[in-house]
Amino acid sequence: MVSERQLIDYIKRAAGKTPARVQGIGDDCAVFGARAGCKQLVSVDTLVEGIHFDLAWHGPRELGHKAAAVNISDIAAMGGKPCFVLLSMALPARLDFAWLTAFTEGFTAELREYEIVLIGGDTVASPAGLSLSISIIGEAEEGRILYRSGAGVDDVIMVSGPLGDAALGLKLCRQGRKDLLASWPRLTAAHLTPRPEVALGRHLAAGGKVTAMLDMSDGLSTDLAHMCEASGLGARLDADLIPVSAPARQAASALETDVLDAALSGGEDYKLLFTCPAAAAEDLRQEVMAVFKRQIFRIGKMVSGRGVLLCGRDGERDVSFQGYEHVTE
Amino acid sequence: MVSERQLIDYIKRAAGKTPARVQGIGDDCAVFGARAGCKQLVSVDTLVEGIHFDLAWHGPRELGHKAAAVNISDIAAMGGKPCFVLLSMALPARLDFAWLTAFTEGFTAELREYEIVLIGGDTVASPAGLSLSISIIGEAEEGRILYRSGAGVDDVIMVSGPLGDAALGLKLCRQGRKDLLASWPRLTAAHLTPRPEVALGRHLAAGGKVTAMLDMSDGLSTDLAHMCEASGLGARLDADLIPVSAPARQAASALETDVLDAALSGGEDYKLLFTCPAAAAEDLRQEVMAVFKRQIFRIGKMVSGRGVLLCGRDGERDVSFQGYEHVTE
Repeated sequence: MVSERQLIDYIKRAAGKTPARVQGIGDDCAVFGARAGCKQLVSVDTLVEGIHFDLAWHGPRELGHKAAAVNISDIAAMGGKPCFVLLSMALPARLDFAWLTAFTEGFTAELREYEIVLIGGDTVASPAGLSLSISIIGEAEEGRILYRSGAGVDDVIMVSGPLGDAALGLKLCRQGRKDLLASWPRLTAAHLTPRPEVALGRHLAAGGKVTAMLDMSDGLSTDLAHMCEASGLGARLDADLIPVSAPARQAASALETDVLDAALSGGEDYKLLFTCPAAAAEDLRQEVMAVFKRQIFRIGKMVSGRGVLLCGRDGERDVSFQGYEHVTE
Repeated sequence: MVSERQLIDYIKRAAGKTPARVQGIGDDCAVFGARAGCKQLVSVDTLVEGIHFDLAWHGPRELGHKAAAVNISDIAAMGGKPCFVLLSMALPARLDFAWLTAFTEGFTAELREYEIVLIGGDTVASPAGLSLSISIIGEAEEGRILYRSGAGVDDVIMVSGPLGDAALGLKLCRQGRKDLLASWPRLTAAHLTPRPEVALGRHLAAGGKVTAMLDMSDGLSTDLAHMCEASGLGARLDADLIPVSAPARQAASALETDVLDAALSGGEDYKLLFTCPAAAAEDLRQEVMAVFKRQIFRIGKMVSGRGVLLCGRDGERDVSFQGYEHVTE
């Protein structure tokens, strides 16, 4: 069993040098100075073994990456720049030092990619499973923050990439069939090591065209329903426009599941969902293509009323809040 | 079982109105503006069922108070003003809505006492026990923050109140004997609903006399050893000067345990431990008496070298890090 002091010493070294404006790990609190003209963004995510991850297929390094990534994604969702992280771990005795160092390496590697500083945390024992709680602090210039509540009637709804990859990746991991896992590495990677959309989020927030934004963690039907509620509107999704990847189609077929269902209800894609006035949509698409060499996808529009309607060849149905709900499942 | 949305709606109402400079619960991040001239203080604490609390004697309301208090205490330890809190809960299905509302009431009541705003959090399912992770953000004027590392040679070591009450309170709870529990409500209250020393901490940080400070969570021997390490010094404690309450003496006797041991190794007292130059100590004592109508206690002094020496009638012994360690115990 690892001692608390030994582990904290290791994490402190792994966290690296802190910038001059920051007092990091080692005191009762971390201390930092906010930049003038910026607002502070803060969020916390808790990941619980057996609910959010399974150590049977989540290696320590990958889990470290993912734990950081899903938290960073919350800052991306507002258009902010992630700055500081605190990592709290409730550790079962069965995890040895090698596991903990691999986890910490993955976690800090993910942070370094975005120049985020690990400034504190907590390490406690857990009598049951591993539980991770990560707090993140970011910043954004005043007036350049995107909320869920800003969508307007007739605004176009867009997503930053194909949906359902992560949900199908999770299904593949659960099946545990090596042949299936090897066939679609894009899907398992989407589940195991999602990528937060920090640069795109900042670009969209700075450009002035986007009216509302969030990151997709619970599946399109639930995430969009949250945006509808916050904006006091409804949404109409065009089923044919919801982007899904070719591997997702193939895997869904092999797993005998519906690929659209994975996109709507699967969760964990961590793509950005955002709205903009119809007149600005084409400009925005071209701009993102020019700057990031990638597509964004128009999937529907905001309407007056309530709820998320999925409109397809078979008619319309309300799909609000049919995604993943963490407490009831 | 409670749905995540139902619970978040309840917590959002319980959190009350947020001030104008704050965007609270309901988006991917909370947003706030830092005050000019202030540094931000941030800390996280995780409390795990079966490790930090036992629902057999910790009622939901008391646990709510305690979860907030131990976190607030980290801000007090630096001399800061607590401002914002995020509450993350991993909830086992056995906890019903009544339990959750009572917990939330205790938690938000503790926050209100210090004008702290609940601005976010996370609610997830737990397949095992209840786990709480609380992040706190405070502020302090630049130059008025106390670190563990500031103690100087010959500085007097002081504590803000008697030690060992909480450890003995825990022992009483564990025994579960109603007669014992009823005899010393001060001790069980010290364990169940500790009080963070926010006003005193701010006063000490503002006064310019105190050189180092922390809040006592792991027992004097460990907390002081941390201060020694951070300050690059050792400490000599006078065993006869360590303050213990009359109820603590009586309960220790009834439980056939050593009261000094409870003070040194017990933890969870959440008193402030601080140092000041010898020449300023008497002034500081009188000042605290005048402002707060309470005693502070001189218990030893900082010395060159390393380690925490306990000096008593039976000679000297090194007691460094003999307090509670969360991961190995």
